[in-house]
Amino acid sequence: MSPESPLAFLCTIKLDPPSPSDKTADADRLVHTLHGMGMDASVPLRVLRRLPGELRENEFAIKMVMGVDGPKGSGGQHSLKVLDIGRDCVYGIAIDIGSTNIECSLFDLVTGERIGGAGIGNPQVRFGPDVLTRVQGAMTGEFDALTRGLTEGVNTLIEKTAAKHGIRTDDIFAAAVAGNTIMSHFFLGLDVNNIPLSPYIPAVNRPVYCTAGDLGLVINRNAVVYAFPNAGSYVGGDVISGMLFSGMHKEEEPVLFVDVGTNVEVTLGCRDWIMTGAGAAGPALEGGVASIGRKAERGTISRVSIDPLTREIGMDVISGSEPEGICGSGLIDLVSEMFNAGIIDQSGKFTGSGSGIIEKDGTRAYVLHRSEDRELVLTENEIRNFLLSKAAMFSFLYVFVRSVGLTFSDIKKVYVAGALGCGINPESAIRIGMLPDMPRERFVPLGNSSLGGAEMVLLNRTLLRDVDEIASRITYREMNEDAELMHILQGGIFIPHTEPEMLKG
Amino acid sequence: MSPESPLAFLCTIKLDPPSPSDKTADADRLVHTLHGMGMDASVPLRVLRRLPGELRENEFAIKMVMGVDGPKGSGGQHSLKVLDIGRDCVYGIAIDIGSTNIECSLFDLVTGERIGGAGIGNPQVRFGPDVLTRVQGAMTGEFDALTRGLTEGVNTLIEKTAAKHGIRTDDIFAAAVAGNTIMSHFFLGLDVNNIPLSPYIPAVNRPVYCTAGDLGLVINRNAVVYAFPNAGSYVGGDVISGMLFSGMHKEEEPVLFVDVGTNVEVTLGCRDWIMTGAGAAGPALEGGVASIGRKAERGTISRVSIDPLTREIGMDVISGSEPEGICGSGLIDLVSEMFNAGIIDQSGKFTGSGSGIIEKDGTRAYVLHRSEDRELVLTENEIRNFLLSKAAMFSFLYVFVRSVGLTFSDIKKVYVAGALGCGINPESAIRIGMLPDMPRERFVPLGNSSLGGAEMVLLNRTLLRDVDEIASRITYREMNEDAELMHILQGGIFIPHTEPEMLKG
Repeated sequence: MSPESPLAFLCTIKLDPPSPSDKTADADRLVHTLHGMGMDASVPLRVLRRLPGELRENEFAIKMVMGVDGPKGSGGQHSLKVLDIGRDCVYGIAIDIGSTNIECSLFDLVTGERIGGAGIGNPQVRFGPDVLTRVQGAMTGEFDALTRGLTEGVNTLIEKTAAKHGIRTDDIFAAAVAGNTIMSHFFLGLDVNNIPLSPYIPAVNRPVYCTAGDLGLVINRNAVVYAFPNAGSYVGGDVISGMLFSGMHKEEEPVLFVDVGTNVEVTLGCRDWIMTGAGAAGPALEGGVASIGRKAERGTISRVSIDPLTREIGMDVISGSEPEGICGSGLIDLVSEMFNAGIIDQSGKFTGSGSGIIEKDGTRAYVLHRSEDRELVLTENEIRNFLLSKAAMFSFLYVFVRSVGLTFSDIKKVYVAGALGCGINPESAIRIGMLPDMPRERFVPLGNSSLGGAEMVLLNRTLLRDVDEIASRITYREMNEDAELMHILQGGIFIPHTEPEMLKG
Repeated sequence: MSPESPLAFLCTIKLDPPSPSDKTADADRLVHTLHGMGMDASVPLRVLRRLPGELRENEFAIKMVMGVDGPKGSGGQHSLKVLDIGRDCVYGIAIDIGSTNIECSLFDLVTGERIGGAGIGNPQVRFGPDVLTRVQGAMTGEFDALTRGLTEGVNTLIEKTAAKHGIRTDDIFAAAVAGNTIMSHFFLGLDVNNIPLSPYIPAVNRPVYCTAGDLGLVINRNAVVYAFPNAGSYVGGDVISGMLFSGMHKEEEPVLFVDVGTNVEVTLGCRDWIMTGAGAAGPALEGGVASIGRKAERGTISRVSIDPLTREIGMDVISGSEPEGICGSGLIDLVSEMFNAGIIDQSGKFTGSGSGIIEKDGTRAYVLHRSEDRELVLTENEIRNFLLSKAAMFSFLYVFVRSVGLTFSDIKKVYVAGALGCGINPESAIRIGMLPDMPRERFVPLGNSSLGGAEMVLLNRTLLRDVDEIASRITYREMNEDAELMHILQGGIFIPHTEPEMLKG
C-alpha cells in the first residue's frame, strides 16, 4: 500500500523555470506551484537558503520533504512546511510510551511499508515502577533525570530499530507519539507537579506539535513530532490513540474499550459520545506484582492450563525454552485454571496443602515450575493482589456501563487492548470475573492499540482531526469517589464475584 | 500614543483558576481564553514548559509577550504565538538596511513611544561601494564574510542604540527590516547568485517571517523578525516600505515617488496601480563619487548658495564646525548654484579659470573650501558623473510618467525620499533638471521613507496586509532596454536639458 497522507512525505515537483517573461522569485514560484496543487506550505529560512542552488542544480525539479505544521484555524485542516530539500527518502516512527515499556514501529513513508518495530523497557522504571512515584520524584528534584532518562530510552530504541534495518536516523522526518498523560508530559519536558494534586491539572491536553530538535530526539532535528492529546490527568494520549485504532468513535451502538496496563482504562462509547475513566489497578494484571512476572519475551509463560482431575500443569512458553517467568495474560490463565482445578477457592486462598503447594517465607505458594536452576512460585499474597486488580477492573466496567443506563447485554463489542503480554484469553478472564460473561465472539483483542493508533496517524494526517474529535467527545468519569464502585470492588475480590449475576450485567 | 497592534505586544490576562468542576489543562485554558479575546495563538513547547509554574506563581494572572507567526491562510490575517511569559516590557526595532548606511529606530511597544534611533555605515562597504560588486564578491567566495559583516553591523547598531537608552536587547521582541533586494538577501543569508544574471531571479520576493535566532541577531532569540517583501531584483523592500510610508497606495490620483539612494527608484501610482523601476544611477547623487562626498554628520555641508554676482559661496555645515565634506543634497545645491552663477555651463564644464577654479591632477576643479588642514574641491569629472546620475534620474521620471499616458502636469504630488543627506532642495533640483519643473508645493520630502515604513509596520501589524497589497500591485518596468530613455538621458546630461520643454512634461 502507499500511504494516503503521512505526517511527513516526499514531494517531487518540476517547476517552470524562470524566463524574461516570468521573473517570479524562487520561493514564490515554489509556494505558488504548491498552492496550485492544493498545498499551503511555508518555507523556513534554512530551506530558503539552499533553495536557489538546489533548483538550478536539478533543472528546477525538486525533491522536498514536507510535513505538517500544526493545525490551521479551527477547521481541522493542517498547514504544511517544507522540512528539507534534495532528499530521496522519508521515514517515520510511531512510538508508544508506556509506563513500563516503550514500543515503536518504523515506516517507510514513501511506500507506507512497515519496516520493523522493537520495544525497550522504560528507563524511568528505576525511579519507581508506577507513574505516581515518578511524579513525586519529579517534584523532589529528579525532574531533569526523569525526562532525560526517558529521552535517552526513546533515542536508544530509535537508534536500535533504525540500525537494524539500515535506516539513517537523519532520514526519519516524522514521529507520532502516544503515552498516558504523565508519560507524555515527561516526554515533552512538561511540568507534572499539578497532575497528582487536586484538581489534577495537566500542563496541556491539546495535541502538541513540535520538532525533534525541541525534544533532543536522534531523528532529523527538523522532523515533525506529534504528541497525542490527553483528555485529562487520567485519560492520556495512549487511550485516545487506542480509541482511534479501535474505530469505536465511528460505531453506531455503544462498544466497550478496555486498555489494561499498569492502569486500567475503561471507555464506553460510540460516534455520539465517549465516556472514559481510569484507575490505578496496579501492575498486578501485567504480572508486575508477582515476583515471577515479566514481559513477553523468550522464556515467558504466555498460556497456562491445569487439568482439573490430575492438577497437572501445561504451559506455552515463548520460543519453547525453559520458563523463566509469566506475563499478564499467562497470569490470568494461571489464576483462572487454579480456581477451575480447585487449587484456590473463591477468595483466592489455597484449598489444601497438596499438589504443588509449598510453604515459602512464612506464606503458602503454588509451584508453577521447578528445575535445577529456578523455582517459579505464586504466593497467596500475590494472588490476592491480582484479585484486587481484577476486581478494580471489573467494577470499573460495571459502573461505567450502568452509569449510562446500559447493561453488559447491550454491548455489542468489547475491545481488549493493553500490554498484557500475549493477548488476553477472554475465557479465562471471564471465568475469574475480570471481564463480563458475554458471548465470546464479542471480545476483540487489539494488542498494543496505543501504538496502533500512532501508526495510523503517522501514515494518515487526515486522522488528526478524528483524534481531536475523539478527545473533545470524551467525558471523564472520576471513579475513585464512587460509592457503588467500592461496593462492587469489594465483591470482585472473590472469584468470580460475590454477586455473580453482576457479571451478566 | 498607544500602538494599535504592534508586531509583538504585551498581553496581560487573568485566567479563571482550575477547580474540581473545571479541569481544563493550563495550555488549553490559555488558548481558549485568548481565542475568546479574538486571538488565535500557538504556545511553543519552550513556553509550555514554564506555563504551569508561572500561572501558579501569579494566581493565574499572566504577562505574555505575543508576536505575529506569519500569515494565516490567504485572507491577510496573521496568527499569533506566545513568545515569552513573565515579562514586563516589550521593545521593537525598525531597521533600514541601505547599501551605504544602516539606520534604526527603537520603540517601546507597550506605549508606542519612539525611544531613539541611530545609524551606522554598512560594514559591507569595504567589499565594494555598490551592491553589484558585493554580489560578485559573494559569488567568488565571500558570501559568508558579507552576510556575517552585515549581521555584525546590524548587531552593533542595535546594541549601541539599546545601551544608549538603557534597554536590554533581550527585551526587544520584534524587528521590522527593510532593504533593497540584495541587502535583504544578504541580511537573511539568502543566495544572491541569480540576482545579477538574466533573468534576474531573487531567492524570495514574499515577505519573510523568521526569528532573531535564525539570523543570529542580538535581540531576544525568539523575537519575530519581519523582512519586507521585494517586487523583483530591482525593486526591494525598501521601496515598498517607502511606498507604505508615503501612503501613495491609497491616493485616488497618480502620485510620483522618487527614492534617491545609490540606486534611483521611481514609482508612479495610486490605489489602483503602481508602476516602478530602478536604475543604477550610481552613487553620485549621494555624494559618493565626489571625493568630498560624505554622509550627513558633524562637519558635512548640507546647503550651498553662491552669489551670482560676486560668486561668493555660502554654506550650512552640520553642527556649524569646519566643513569636511558634502552630502548628496548639498551637492545638488552646489552644482545648481555653480550653474546659476555661471561657473559651469550647460554641459557642466567650467566657463573660465578665475574665481576658485584650480588645476588639480591634470583636470580642473572648483574649490569649495580651503583651510590649513584641508581643501575641498569638486572636479569637472565629478560634475560630469553627477550630471549623468541626475540625467538617469530625470529620464526615469519622464519615461515613467509618459508610459502611462500622463504628463508631469497630471501629477499632483511628488514624494522625494532617500538618503540624500539633509533632504533635497526642490528648487535646486529643478534648476538643474533633476526634478521636473512643477509647482514647488507639490514636492513632499519624506526623508528615510524605508525606515518610516518599517516603523509603521512595527507598530501596526494590520499594515502587513497593505504591504502585501502594494507588493502585489507593483508592475516593474525594465528601464535599461528602453530606447526613448536613452535619448532623454543623453539630453539630460546637460543643465537643465537639451530639450527643456521636457521638464514641463
